[in-house]
Amino acid sequence: MATKNIAVLAGDGIGPEVVAQGIKVLDAVAEVFGHTFNYTEALVGAVAIDATGNPLPEETLEVCKASDAVFFGAIGHPKYDNDPNAKVRPEQGLLALRKSLGLFANIRPVTTFEALIHKSPLKEEKVRGADLVVYRELTGGIYFGEKGRNEKGDEAYDNCAYSTGEIERIAKLAFEAAQNRRKKLTLVDKANVLETSRLWREVVRGMASSYPDVEVDYMFVDNAAMQLIQWPSQFDVILTENMFGDIISDEASVLTGSMGLLPSASIGAKVGMYEPIHGSYPQAAGQDIANPMATVLSAAMLLDGIGMYTEGNAVRTAVDKAISENYVTEDLDKEAAKKCSEVGDYLAELV
Amino acid sequence: MATKNIAVLAGDGIGPEVVAQGIKVLDAVAEVFGHTFNYTEALVGAVAIDATGNPLPEETLEVCKASDAVFFGAIGHPKYDNDPNAKVRPEQGLLALRKSLGLFANIRPVTTFEALIHKSPLKEEKVRGADLVVYRELTGGIYFGEKGRNEKGDEAYDNCAYSTGEIERIAKLAFEAAQNRRKKLTLVDKANVLETSRLWREVVRGMASSYPDVEVDYMFVDNAAMQLIQWPSQFDVILTENMFGDIISDEASVLTGSMGLLPSASIGAKVGMYEPIHGSYPQAAGQDIANPMATVLSAAMLLDGIGMYTEGNAVRTAVDKAISENYVTEDLDKEAAKKCSEVGDYLAELV
Ligand SMILES: CC(C)[C@H](C(=O)O)[C@@H](O)C(=O)O
Ligand SMILES: CC(C)[C@H](C(=O)O)[C@@H](O)C(=O)O
Repeated sequence: MATKNIAVLAGDGIGPEVVAQGIKVLDAVAEVFGHTFNYTEALVGAVAIDATGNPLPEETLEVCKASDAVFFGAIGHPKYDNDPNAKVRPEQGLLALRKSLGLFANIRPVTTFEALIHKSPLKEEKVRGADLVVYRELTGGIYFGEKGRNEKGDEAYDNCAYSTGEIERIAKLAFEAAQNRRKKLTLVDKANVLETSRLWREVVRGMASSYPDVEVDYMFVDNAAMQLIQWPSQFDVILTENMFGDIISDEASVLTGSMGLLPSASIGAKVGMYEPIHGSYPQAAGQDIANPMATVLSAAMLLDGIGMYTEGNAVRTAVDKAISENYVTEDLDKEAAKKCSEVGDYLAELV
Repeated sequence: MATKNIAVLAGDGIGPEVVAQGIKVLDAVAEVFGHTFNYTEALVGAVAIDATGNPLPEETLEVCKASDAVFFGAIGHPKYDNDPNAKVRPEQGLLALRKSLGLFANIRPVTTFEALIHKSPLKEEKVRGADLVVYRELTGGIYFGEKGRNEKGDEAYDNCAYSTGEIERIAKLAFEAAQNRRKKLTLVDKANVLETSRLWREVVRGMASSYPDVEVDYMFVDNAAMQLIQWPSQFDVILTENMFGDIISDEASVLTGSMGLLPSASIGAKVGMYEPIHGSYPQAAGQDIANPMATVLSAAMLLDGIGMYTEGNAVRTAVDKAISENYVTEDLDKEAAKKCSEVGDYLAELV
C-alpha cells in the first residue's frame, strides 16, 4: 500500500485517448493492490504551444519534478513539421523535458507476440524469436550539441559531442540489463568514421571486463540497419548513442508486427518517463480507434520503475490475455475491431 | 570506337576476385563494340596500408585523376575495426578518395529481381514492386566535419556542417533522376532536431518549384527507417545527407534479397567511381565463391558514366539472362552454386 504522484502529459494527436486507457488500468491496479495514485495533468507539445506559446511550460516541468513518475502520451503535429523556420516546435518540449529531468537512458524492448507474428512485414521464420531491447542515450550527442547558422544563413552546423561519463552511465545500465537477459550486448556505432564513436568503443571495451558474463559485440550502424532485418534474433541488448538510437529503435519496432504494442521507458535521475513509441498519429486522433496497448504496457514499465514489479506483471498478463482472446483494436484485426476505450475497459477489468 | 583509361582499385577481401570478373566483362564489351580500355591497377585500403603505410597512396590518387573512371572493389579488414586507436584505417583511404575526386553524389539503385524475390527477408507482397534509388551526399556532413578530443581525451566531438551549395548540387541530380523515373523525390532528414536538416529542407523546398513535374515528400529519418520495411514500393528517389544515407541505403539494400547484385556509382567532378555495395566480406576472400554480379553491374554503371549507354545495357541484359538461367553463385542458390570466376566467364560470353 503506497501513495504515488503521477504526472500525466497526454500531449497531441491520439495521446489523450490512449493515456486515458492507461489510467483506467492504473486505477484498477490501485484498487486491487490498495495503492493510491494521484494524477496531475499538464500540457506538453503542440497543445501546450497553442495554449501558452511554449511546448514545455514551466508549470509542466514543475509538475513532473514533483512527481514519482511521468506518464506520457505523444507529441507532434503536422502543421509544425514542414515549417523549418518555425520558432517553436512541439518536439522542443520533449527534448527539453528529457534534458531537464536527466532522462539519459531510453529503453525500448521489442518483443514478438506469437499471435501477431502474421502482421510482421518480415517472413515469419525471420522474425520468430526476436526479443531485444535498445538502450539509447537520450540527453547527449548531436541532439543537444551546439547548432546554428553562419551570418548569411547559407551554412548550418550541428555538433555531436560525448564525454566518458555520459557513455559510462548508460553503458552500466545496458550491461546490467544484459546480465538479466541473454547476456549479450551489441554496441552500435560508426567507429570507422566518427571520433565520438571511437570514444564509445573505448569506454565500452574498458567496462566489458567488469561484466565477464556478458558477450560484447561491436557493430557499425549501417551494418546494424541490415542485420536487424536479416537476422533480428541475434540481438539481445543493443546499446547506442542518441541519433543512431532514434533510427535503429524505430527500425526495430516495425520488425515483429507489434508496433502498436511497444512501450518505452526513459530513466536517469529521480523521475522516469513512460510512453508508447508510436507517436501522435494525428490522422487517427479523436476516433477512438487507436491501439492503447503500447500505452498500457508503458504503464506497466512505470509500475516497474516505481518498484511495483508484481503490479507491472499483472498488467502485462492482462495484455497477453486480451491479445490471445483477440480483444484488440482494428490495427490488429479489422474484423474483431474493438474501440480504443473498449480495450481499455477490458484490460482494467482483467487486472 | 573509343579509348578509355580505367583505374582499377580492387582493394581488400573479395575485392580482387569480383573486380577480376568485372574486367572480363569490360573486355568482352571492348571486343564487341570495338573500344579500347586501358586498365591501371592501384592500391587502396588495407592492402595499401600493408604495402605503403598509407590507405590512399599519392600514386593511387594520381592514377585515378588521370583516368576516365575508377573501378573499385571493396575495402576494410577486421584487424582494423576493433582498434579505435589505430592511426591509419583502410576506410580513410576511401574517404580521402571521395573527397579528392569530388565525388559528392553516391547513387545506389535498389531493384527487385523477380527470380530472387524469395530470398528477401520481407514477405513477397511487401517487397514486390520495390524500385528505388538513393542519392546520398558523399563529401560533406559529419563524415568530413572537424572531429577530435579534448586534452584529457575523455571528451570527443564530430561536427556536422552543410552549405546551401553542397545541398543544391546533389539535389539537382536527384530531381533530374526523379524526372526520368516515377517523378517522386523523398528528402530524408531530421528537421525536427537538426539545423543542418532544416537547411536541407529549405534548399530542397526552394528548388521544388523548378521541377513542377516532381512530387516532393519530406520524411524524418526514423520514420524512413520504418517505411522502408513496411512499404518500400512507395519510394522512387530518396535524397539524403551523408550519415543518414549510409544507414538508409544499406537498410534498403537488404530488402529485396538482391544484396549481392547491387551496384553503385559515386560521381561529382570529372571522374566517377563505380563499386559494388557489398563490402570486402573477408570471410569469403580467396575462395572463389563471392557473387560478382554487383561488381559487373557496377561496370555497367561505369559504362553509362562514360557515355556508353548501349554497352551498359548489354551488360545488364547479360546479368538478367544469367539470373533467369540460374547461372549464379552459392549465395543465390546453394544447389546450382557456380564459382565466382565461372559466373564472370559466362557473363563475358553472354555479352
Ligand atoms: C520527436 C523527436 C524529437 C523524437 C526523437 O527524435 O528523439 C522521437 O523521434 C523519438 O524517438 O522519441
Ligand atoms: C567504409 C565506410 C567508411 C563507408 C561509409 O560509411 O561511407 C561505407 O559504409 C560505405 O557506405 O561506403
